[in-house]
Amino acid sequence: MNLSERALNVQASPIRKLMPFANAAKKNGVHIYHLNIGQPDIETPQEMLDVYRHYDEKVLAYGPSQGLELYRKNLVKYYDQHGISVDMEDIIVTTAGSEAIIFALLTACDPGDEVIIPEPFYTNYNGFAKIAGVKIVPLTTFAEDGFALPENEKIEALLSEKTKAIMLCNPGNPTGAVYPRKDIERIANIARKNNLFVIADEVYREFVYDGAEHTSILEIADLEDKAIMVDSISKRYSACGARIGCLISRNEDFIQSVTKFAQARLCPPTIDQLAANAAIDIEKSYFKEIIKEYKKRRDIVYDALTEIPGVVCVKPKGAFYIIAKLPIEDSEDFARWMLENFSYQNKTVMFAPAQGFYASQSIGQDEIRIAYILNENDLTDAMNILKKGLEKYQRS
Amino acid sequence: MNLSERALNVQASPIRKLMPFANAAKKNGVHIYHLNIGQPDIETPQEMLDVYRHYDEKVLAYGPSQGLELYRKNLVKYYDQHGISVDMEDIIVTTAGSEAIIFALLTACDPGDEVIIPEPFYTNYNGFAKIAGVKIVPLTTFAEDGFALPENEKIEALLSEKTKAIMLCNPGNPTGAVYPRKDIERIANIARKNNLFVIADEVYREFVYDGAEHTSILEIADLEDKAIMVDSISKRYSACGARIGCLISRNEDFIQSVTKFAQARLCPPTIDQLAANAAIDIEKSYFKEIIKEYKKRRDIVYDALTEIPGVVCVKPKGAFYIIAKLPIEDSEDFARWMLENFSYQNKTVMFAPAQGFYASQSIGQDEIRIAYILNENDLTDAMNILKKGLEKYQRS
Repeated sequence: MNLSERALNVQASPIRKLMPFANAAKKNGVHIYHLNIGQPDIETPQEMLDVYRHYDEKVLAYGPSQGLELYRKNLVKYYDQHGISVDMEDIIVTTAGSEAIIFALLTACDPGDEVIIPEPFYTNYNGFAKIAGVKIVPLTTFAEDGFALPENEKIEALLSEKTKAIMLCNPGNPTGAVYPRKDIERIANIARKNNLFVIADEVYREFVYDGAEHTSILEIADLEDKAIMVDSISKRYSACGARIGCLISRNEDFIQSVTKFAQARLCPPTIDQLAANAAIDIEKSYFKEIIKEYKKRRDIVYDALTEIPGVVCVKPKGAFYIIAKLPIEDSEDFARWMLENFSYQNKTVMFAPAQGFYASQSIGQDEIRIAYILNENDLTDAMNILKKGLEKYQRS
Repeated sequence: MNLSERALNVQASPIRKLMPFANAAKKNGVHIYHLNIGQPDIETPQEMLDVYRHYDEKVLAYGPSQGLELYRKNLVKYYDQHGISVDMEDIIVTTAGSEAIIFALLTACDPGDEVIIPEPFYTNYNGFAKIAGVKIVPLTTFAEDGFALPENEKIEALLSEKTKAIMLCNPGNPTGAVYPRKDIERIANIARKNNLFVIADEVYREFVYDGAEHTSILEIADLEDKAIMVDSISKRYSACGARIGCLISRNEDFIQSVTKFAQARLCPPTIDQLAANAAIDIEKSYFKEIIKEYKKRRDIVYDALTEIPGVVCVKPKGAFYIIAKLPIEDSEDFARWMLENFSYQNKTVMFAPAQGFYASQSIGQDEIRIAYILNENDLTDAMNILKKGLEKYQRS
């Protein structure tokens, strides 16, 4: 039986290739520090977990396709606290950020249309683009300058008749970059000039360090018809398993079309929405503590990396990822070697080779992404092991 | 801003058009019996609700993209109880049946490919087809003969070079038809002869009456590479809000491709999967009671319909829907009239005009779909009101 071309072409998870080696290492009794995934170890807020524990409806029923009204109303409050003014009608609750991006692409683009995305980017954008039949046009950014947005000419050089949108992840996974307001304004200008949507994935909004300020695409004036924001509670409240996100736009026609796609799949999970709703009233101090924790972790990873000769990386200002250029040729080979051939005190480290985050061929082969989602002690130990492994790998 | 063609063309929910009239009626104090939606009033099993109540993990984490192993293993047991032999590796857990159908279409078809579907069919298939860029080729079936599958020539006449699959809903929403084994065998033969996938939506498996037997596509021999089954717990356990379904195939390549799409969206909701898992051990007596209840409801609706002069319908053998041909010209107009202009003892009835379930133009305009998801007393009252309404409408 022939499968569809798109099914054959959709990218397999770049991490997945390494799983057999990780499993073999575990079988041999080697402990693996997982710096390869964005699953935080932070506890999910009690307020959310209590919702599951106290659910007392008799029938676990469908909710509205746009999401529970109760939750959408509360989301308006949440965004208002972040200086983002939206109405309930601008919000469609989705099954995590993934579905929000799929809906955004389906509504902004027809098959064959193009979306410009700064690379390196979150690998799953490839899968979403394949589902929507959309072509990703990569805008290359560089480790050397902290993955900052390139100048306008570089961006405009990528425009074609088929370009329908620019998509940003801000704060960035996998880069940790936080775009300054003037860069978001620049993108907005290009969008206005060329009649493009701007799809901003802002799921790491809270995670900014060193006084950096996050600028939402919805804060930009005169962009009401073009600004589309994607959000998720997965990282914000360490609730990845709840699968609750949302899509926001002040473009009424856009939201109306998204609603039709949303109606087809009926609704996002009901109790998980109620749990997400309970999180909105969490004290601000909750985030203060968590951000302090992540900042500490970032510093551990960054300091350890800069001590390794030949490593290039700029201290990231947001999210909980860092991309480092290593003095090696093939980070996938190195990642595999760390699992297959190296351990220190019976422990090793798993990270993500960064090549999978680039759409351009032959870029990022000497880069790795580290997710700093372990506690201080484990992270310190893991970075020490990475350093020792790299030394041995370079000599091998 | 221009939206995509597909966003503009995707069908809005046919029921939604009637909502303003329903809301206006409610505002005027009229009670509406909702026979228009498939939200059962049956209580969700306590075993499932208890899972939410006793969830005690500290971090609500991602699960595997294929679904929790625990749950997939238990699903093997569930299907075995139904005479369907599958391995855990054949199963991908999805965010409800909706996502399973989208994954099936994405993997079986490229944009522009065709899928033959007996009509009337579940309207949301239109949305899924639009998302996947697939063309639905309707195979018309008729109220007069209980929406039975037409003879082979009728089916084969619809084949083209672009046909990639035949999709069935069995037991059928909105028809209530249960295809006899010989008809499933016929479809399998056509699929073998023409190298087509058969996608079977079997979410109403348990809901069969009068000794009818459900035949799963996975029971058919020599169809391993072509048979794809879509399932969901929404109706089975009256847990529509949990959003848990699955996609099953013994075609390894197919499942491997689906896995790549599944990885892009990370995972289905975690706690909801645990709840679904708990439902598998529910006693068989649970279904016995529920099926007895639905059968009673079906009989109330069917008997009431046959007492109305000029109504055509065959007693449905499955699911909890019935399509009736009424002695009217425009069922959408009648539906609206019932909400806007009619009430009896300050009550009226909302049902689904059936035209939206047909892809062919100008079919089904005199038909309605009734979901028999209310208790005995309410349903009896609702059918009485429908009868009185129809009489008055015909005279108006």
